[in-house]
This record gives sequence, C-alpha cells and structure tokens, in this order.
Amino acid sequence: MSSQKVSLIEIEKLLSKAAAKFVSLEEAQYFAKAQIECTLFMYPDVNPINSAVEDLESWEKLKASKIEIQVDKSGTFLVDFNRLGPSLKLKWVHDKIEEKAKLNGIAMFGLNNSNVTDWLKLWTYGLAKRNLIAMYVFNGGLGTVPYGGSEPIFGTNPLSYAIPTEDDPILVDMATSESAFYKYSRALKDKHRMREGVLVDQNGNLTCDPVIAISKDKENARILPMGGGYKGYNIVLLIEILTGALVRSFMGLEKSAKYTKHEYGGLLIAIDISGLTDLDKFKSSVSKMCKDIRSQKHGDHVTQVIVPGDHAHFRAKKLRAEGVLELDLGIYEKLKNWESQK
Amino acid sequence: MSSQKVSLIEIEKLLSKAAAKFVSLEEAQYFAKAQIECTLFMYPDVNPINSAVEDLESWEKLKASKIEIQVDKSGTFLVDFNRLGPSLKLKWVHDKIEEKAKLNGIAMFGLNNSNVTDWLKLWTYGLAKRNLIAMYVFNGGLGTVPYGGSEPIFGTNPLSYAIPTEDDPILVDMATSESAFYKYSRALKDKHRMREGVLVDQNGNLTCDPVIAISKDKENARILPMGGGYKGYNIVLLIEILTGALVRSFMGLEKSAKYTKHEYGGLLIAIDISGLTDLDKFKSSVSKMCKDIRSQKHGDHVTQVIVPGDHAHFRAKKLRAEGVLELDLGIYEKLKNWESQK
Repeated sequence: MSSQKVSLIEIEKLLSKAAAKFVSLEEAQYFAKAQIECTLFMYPDVNPINSAVEDLESWEKLKASKIEIQVDKSGTFLVDFNRLGPSLKLKWVHDKIEEKAKLNGIAMFGLNNSNVTDWLKLWTYGLAKRNLIAMYVFNGGLGTVPYGGSEPIFGTNPLSYAIPTEDDPILVDMATSESAFYKYSRALKDKHRMREGVLVDQNGNLTCDPVIAISKDKENARILPMGGGYKGYNIVLLIEILTGALVRSFMGLEKSAKYTKHEYGGLLIAIDISGLTDLDKFKSSVSKMCKDIRSQKHGDHVTQVIVPGDHAHFRAKKLRAEGVLELDLGIYEKLKNWESQK
Repeated sequence: MSSQKVSLIEIEKLLSKAAAKFVSLEEAQYFAKAQIECTLFMYPDVNPINSAVEDLESWEKLKASKIEIQVDKSGTFLVDFNRLGPSLKLKWVHDKIEEKAKLNGIAMFGLNNSNVTDWLKLWTYGLAKRNLIAMYVFNGGLGTVPYGGSEPIFGTNPLSYAIPTEDDPILVDMATSESAFYKYSRALKDKHRMREGVLVDQNGNLTCDPVIAISKDKENARILPMGGGYKGYNIVLLIEILTGALVRSFMGLEKSAKYTKHEYGGLLIAIDISGLTDLDKFKSSVSKMCKDIRSQKHGDHVTQVIVPGDHAHFRAKKLRAEGVLELDLGIYEKLKNWESQK
C-alpha cells in the first residue's frame, strides 16, 4: 500500500475536524491529541491512526446511533456504545471517571457493544497526566487457551496501566497472552515459526508452528497465557470475566468464532492518588524507585534495565521532534475527504 | 516439632474465644470461621492457623495500640493498623467495603503498618460469598528482581482474587514472582536446585542454585517475576506501587533489607456485580465458562484442565469431612492458654 509523509500538526488538525462532525469541538480536539500521543508511543511498529479512522467511520456509518448510559452510580458508569467507536468519547469518559474518582477515591467505567478499543494506552495515559492511577482491560476474540488446555476460550486480554511520576508516567500496554494476536497473524502469513512457549497444538502440547496452532474452528489461534504457566492463566481469566459478564458483554464461548468487534468489552478503573496519600510524596517515591530500577546491573539478555514506558516515551520524543508520520494513502484520503465535506 | 490432632470444631472455638479478648464476639467468630476456611484450602502444604495465632499475639502484646482510620471516603478507606494483626478486623473490613461497594459499584480498602497479611485468600473469599468480585494485593519484603535486573527491589507481591459462580467461587492466591518466597527458602535450606527460569545471579543471568541467587545484602533472594519476562515484571511493579506509595506504606528500597512486617502494605478492591449487571446472569455465564474450561482436552504436562480454586475446594471438602487438623503443640498450647485466661 502506498503511503505519504504528513506532518503531526496536519494529522491532528484533520482528526479533530473529522471528529467535530460527530462530537463537540472540545471532545474532537481531545480525541485528536490523544490519538497522536498514542501513535507516537507505538509507531512505526503499529499505526493507531488507522484505528482512529475506523472509529470515525463508525460514527459516519451509524448516524442514527447514540451511546446509552446503562448504569450511573456515584463511583461507576457503564455504557452501551451501540457499535460506535468509543475513542471519540474519550474526553467525556475521562472527565466523568476523574470526577467520580475524586469523590470516592476509586471509580470504574465499563463499556460494551462498541467498535472495540484497539490500543489501550489511549485510555490510561491521559488519566495519569491528571494524577490518577489508571488501569484498563479489554478482551476481544478468541485466541488464548487456559493453562493445560487445547482450545482458545479467552481473548488475548490486553492490560494497560499508567502511573504518574515526577517525570513521564509509567506506561504499560500488553497482551496478557504470551503473544499479541497480530504477532501470531504475522507469523502465520509470513510462514515463520514462533519461539517455544507461545503456542500449543490440538492436544494441548507445545508447538512452534503457527499452522499447527490454528484452532479447531479454523478462525482462531491457540496462544498460551503470559509466561506459559498457571499464573498467567489466572490473570487472563480474571480479565475475561471483568470485560465479559461483568460489563454486560460476551466472554468465553459466548463470543462468535469469527472476530466480532461489538462482542468485546472493556473495564477502566481510576484511583485518585490524592484521595489516599500526599500526591508529591507519592510521585517522589515512585520516581526514586524508577531510578533505582534503571541503575541496576543488567543480564546478558537485555541492554539495560528499563521502567515500563521508557521505550515509548523515548520514541515519542524522537518522533515529536521529527514532526512527521507516514500515513497509508487510503487513510489520508479519508481524513482529507472529511475535511472537504461541509 | 511435635504436633497434635485437633478437631475443626475445637480449633474454631479456641480461635474465636481468643479473638473475643481483643475484638467483639461477632468479629471474633467471623475471624475464626474465615481462618478455618483459609486453612482448609491450603493445609497440609501450609497451615495458616500459625499466622492466625501470630495475629492474636500481636493484639495481646500491643494492648495499648488501636487501629487508626486515616481516610474514610464514600468509596475508599485507609487504615493504619499500628502493627496489630489485621485479620481480627476482617469482619469490620468486609462489612465496610461491602457497604461502600454497594453504594458506588466499586470500593477500595488500603492498609499499612500492620502485622502483615500472610494468606490473601482470607481477604477475598468471604467477599465472593457476599456476591462481590474481590481482588487483594500485598507486597512484603524484597525478593523479586525487575526484568533484566540483578537485585531484588520488589516483594513477591502476591495477588488473590475471588469471583462468585453458581457453585464455589473461583479462587486465586499466588505470588506474582515466579516462586513464592517460602519455596525459595526451602530450596536454600534443603540444598536443592530450583528449575531454570526462577532465579538470577549477581549479574542478572539465570541460575538454578539458590545459594548463588542470594542477594547482595545477603538478606534476600533474586527471584524473577512470574513467567520470567517483562509481562510478569509489569504486574509485579504495579502491585509494588499499589501496596507501597499509594497506601502510605514502603516500597522498593525504602523497605529494610531484613524482612520487617510493618513496612508492607495491602490494597483490597471490591466490585458489586449487581451494581453493573444482573447477578444471576453473571453467575450463569461464569459457571458456563468454567464448565467449558474443565471439559477441554489437556496437554501431557497436566492431568486435567482446571479452574483456579478447584484444587483448593476439593481439598477443603475432604478435610471438612475428616474434621481434624494437625496443630503444632506450641500453637495449640497458646490457644488453650487464651481459653484458660479469665
């Protein structure tokens, strides 16, 4: 696919203009800024601008749809997105969960029936900048087997968290399966084997061959939980339930074999640090620990001991200085098209 | 150490009588019942009655101490235990977090400066029986290295969660390091090697020798995070902060090299399922998924695919039917001594 270099300033402006057709200008600007930040953390490995455009398209396609608040308690809200892209409502969600967290110390937002949330750090990073601890989990599809098992019953169940420090927030965004699904798909497409400890065969035994790891229904993969053992399984199972039955979404074999976006759910938890302790003292302790971690002698298998997010922040600063990203031409044209619409 | 067979009924009665010297009768009975349940899940691998007695002793020794509520918001409370054993206040904590969770959908309890909480399922199981999802994390000591690192900076940071089903709750209680600390201590004492992927040496490289894995300060171990990779590290780090700086406790190198109980903190989160969705529908979905998990074909490395907690519930039922446990004579005598006191 051919692509084009576009300045960050132009991408942000185009995203904001497009989103403003569907949500308020303030929400649109917040969406655009957050999508750029998220992209800078991940590009060129993946380009979240593509997901941002998918979210915009869902609002264009489903003009008659509205999001529906199913629960609104002092510390909790649950939203049915009616298949709309949730990222356009990021500011609204952040404002509302921040207000509830400040009141109660902790607050929770659940979402179901949405156009999925592909990149979880989009949801957590902005809350850390507001001095909250944010944790977000999502399920999505079938691709992960239970420990000892032979067929996928869980999603790859990603987890993101973000924690304020005196400097950049600590930032995690990872599948809780041993491999993200897109890495499996790439291996299958490129016909290369994966390392030991990632995949199992139809009998539940280890394999490195992505073809042998295709599930019984041929739609999914047999990926192990993180670490390959029962501890990772315990984490994956917890997330499946928090993002399934708890938020009125689907989980386990309730989900269709074929990847079906609106069947997946998410749960965001925010903790107001200043509700429990002194914020400056908290940040100082966390920053001190980060420094202690980074100054450790490292083993031969790594080049340095890092704090989660270090690579992402480094990458973002470099890209911000360069000021341009490659966009697929199709994506760029869609954005230009929204701009040219009255 | 010599030991004696004692009936469950007698142990429960003795625990309850002892606790009633320090807290209300209702709290004492709740403490005794929960300690027995927790023990049935773990015995004979470990015997939590010993920790229950340690908690009782702390109340006897620190007669002038009182617990102090530092934060009490609608969804959150934080308690300084002034080195008292927190398990005697289990009913009070459960009542209070349940009330806050019902009001807000989610609630949080933090504790610091306590006589530690050795067995986390004591804190989560009772909440699942009240139809809440409960998650509890604790830090404790120094024993776990960051991914790629060479010196311990985290505790083994256990995590427990409990989730209601139509039958017995799902129940997890695990260190988020690759090995619990007591397993490392046993290997060191018994002079046996641990398997690959558990320990590192002073250069951050893998070792199976527990002697080589002793930390620089000679007080601790160099245990890897769960799974040995960066994903497990991300989980361990999150728990260190949630149970350290967030709850006004210590974390990382703020903790003494020598294991010092009152320096460790805990965080309990409870979610009111019925605040988000229909409770019966939730339980039915979870139970269906558990059934699907258990019916999977299993790999050669396990004898069956289980749901976390299956072994514990099986063990508890068997022991409940037998009706007796072995108690160390010293422990039994302490309990009898409290009984004989006016």
